[in-house]
Amino acid sequence: MYNFTFQNTTKIYFGENQLEHLGEELKRYGTRVLLTYGGGSIKRIGLYDKVMGELKKAGMTVFELSGIEPNPRHSTVNRGVEICKKENVSVLLAVGGGSTIDCTKAIAAAAFYDGDGWDLVAGSAPVTRALPVFTVLTIAATGSEMNAGAVISNMETNEKLALIHPLLQPKASFLDPTNTYSVGAFQMACGAADTLSHIFDTAYFTAAKKMDMVDRIMEEVLRTVVKHAPTAIKEPENYEARANLMWASTWALNGFLQTGAVQATSCHKMEHELSAFYDITHGLGLAILTPRWMEYILDESVASLFKKFGVNVFGIDASMSDMEGARSAISKLSGFLFETLGLNSTLTELGIDDANFNVMAKRACRGGVLAGFRRLTPEDVEKIYRMCL
Amino acid sequence: MYNFTFQNTTKIYFGENQLEHLGEELKRYGTRVLLTYGGGSIKRIGLYDKVMGELKKAGMTVFELSGIEPNPRHSTVNRGVEICKKENVSVLLAVGGGSTIDCTKAIAAAAFYDGDGWDLVAGSAPVTRALPVFTVLTIAATGSEMNAGAVISNMETNEKLALIHPLLQPKASFLDPTNTYSVGAFQMACGAADTLSHIFDTAYFTAAKKMDMVDRIMEEVLRTVVKHAPTAIKEPENYEARANLMWASTWALNGFLQTGAVQATSCHKMEHELSAFYDITHGLGLAILTPRWMEYILDESVASLFKKFGVNVFGIDASMSDMEGARSAISKLSGFLFETLGLNSTLTELGIDDANFNVMAKRACRGGVLAGFRRLTPEDVEKIYRMCL
Repeated sequence: MYNFTFQNTTKIYFGENQLEHLGEELKRYGTRVLLTYGGGSIKRIGLYDKVMGELKKAGMTVFELSGIEPNPRHSTVNRGVEICKKENVSVLLAVGGGSTIDCTKAIAAAAFYDGDGWDLVAGSAPVTRALPVFTVLTIAATGSEMNAGAVISNMETNEKLALIHPLLQPKASFLDPTNTYSVGAFQMACGAADTLSHIFDTAYFTAAKKMDMVDRIMEEVLRTVVKHAPTAIKEPENYEARANLMWASTWALNGFLQTGAVQATSCHKMEHELSAFYDITHGLGLAILTPRWMEYILDESVASLFKKFGVNVFGIDASMSDMEGARSAISKLSGFLFETLGLNSTLTELGIDDANFNVMAKRACRGGVLAGFRRLTPEDVEKIYRMCL
Repeated sequence: MYNFTFQNTTKIYFGENQLEHLGEELKRYGTRVLLTYGGGSIKRIGLYDKVMGELKKAGMTVFELSGIEPNPRHSTVNRGVEICKKENVSVLLAVGGGSTIDCTKAIAAAAFYDGDGWDLVAGSAPVTRALPVFTVLTIAATGSEMNAGAVISNMETNEKLALIHPLLQPKASFLDPTNTYSVGAFQMACGAADTLSHIFDTAYFTAAKKMDMVDRIMEEVLRTVVKHAPTAIKEPENYEARANLMWASTWALNGFLQTGAVQATSCHKMEHELSAFYDITHGLGLAILTPRWMEYILDESVASLFKKFGVNVFGIDASMSDMEGARSAISKLSGFLFETLGLNSTLTELGIDDANFNVMAKRACRGGVLAGFRRLTPEDVEKIYRMCL
């Protein structure tokens, strides 16, 4: 019972002015660093200059890969690998959110592979070695800063897949809540939805009996998001709110809450098809899908768990029947995502119609059915997509 | 704000039948293992045979250090070091509770030191290297299985001191709740008191502003102990209760709850003097001291925190005034420790009188005063000891 292994070796530097430790950490692994980032927001907030200052101070030679996109592409991974090979890079530093970090992890592994980095993601070639990865986090969302996973998209084949390997675990990550001050309402809301979904999808809404303490801690982390996300959106420089969200998103997917749980990830698999086909923000896709998935699978066997969630996270009336409570919980979650956080509630609003639902549903059910909390067939998944229109 | 670093590299194997991984873990570091244990209870429960079976299967050469006492002595550390040096031991395996693990950690460091191992504990010589330490845990209490600390006693000088160094962090620990089935009511109660005290003393009752999420998770872990300890005592083979207590005690002192907190450890410092002079069980000493310490420092400035503890952990009436609530919380905690868990409530019952209180109080205040949640002078500490009579 509850058999699991747990190990998470990433060192976390949390808070302000921790970057002074960046040089000492990186230097252990070499002096030739590839700095990776996205669209340049790190330059606007002055973080780029701070990081470069620390790297120069430590005597590092810096190469750069910029323009890493949301839903990072395998083609960008290959661009990074090229630099690593050409410049004999010894260490990788991702400055950004989950997309930048994920792309960097894939580069770390693909740097030791001769061929298209996509092969590692698709599983047609194994990860054998990886360059050491460090991160400076700028968005509270994916938890990639303290786990061994990376999600990479191939827009040529409309595939979005996860690469998970212990060698991809970051050596150290720098979490300064003030670096998220400039993250706007929409991205904050998507990040909050992503954090909630990580707990729902990998640990909380699962069939396995979970250890009491861990189950309750999940609810604390869920409550943390529900409490602090609206404040962080209203008051972008509220340190308390930003700090709690940052640490909550890290813990939502660093392995601890997953101890003993059977990972279901149904909504993540359905969302990956949405992003792969329409390049939408992952957290937004999850927000739209999750309440519909709950509604679709709702029956007497799951009602008590959904109700417990509503009671413990949203404070709904515990005296309701399981089924009433479950419906109320779904409605509270929808209200939080679509009203409080202000996210779009339908795919239609995003300009997505049912044209690809059939093929997306089949792909989400790789291997025939989508295992998870409830077993879903491609027909089930297609119906859930339609509920999102 | 909330600036901290967090890293915990120990790999945890949790649950039944995980020992099959013991050999593969140890072999990475060599084949000459020193197996350390206490009074032989591991033989009675069949764990010794299981461990030896795995070590033989892995082709290890096994040396043994048995008879490690509660409040492990520096003399025992030195005995272990002798074996390590003579037999060229490459890896240490502690099978037992916090005392066995702590002793083994000190051996790990002292094996690279020429001289009395006590010098490292007393801080007169630095830790420079350490043998790798593995643990198989048999008592839920100290959290030593997932942290870098060890507490060693010198009965010649009546000193009990902590040795903390990253090199002492166990490589991997095996936590099988069924290995605690034979731990009796008294030791379970002491372990529960120790777990509570780790949270109180290092993180929860501290002056620093703590991150909301972490503060609430502390309360979840406290509630876990309050809920499951009585069950584990009444039903020794209740896996659910034993598993929750085991995981709770590990998390109470593995660094996560301590993130951002200023460690106070007032009660631990006072208790170490009790154990150093009278060799009493650490958890029992903490249980007797903690409510008296709370009573002694209670004033308007700490009342709201004590009340919050009472409301969130023991469910006391939130409408009371802070001072009433604080008194009620102390009373609830006393009731839990001395009635529900059945621990002795006074030092007098343990045959301890005030003969050494004056010198113990001075020693607890090494450096003049005992810093912490509230600054305590030797006079304060002596008064608290007297309240325990």
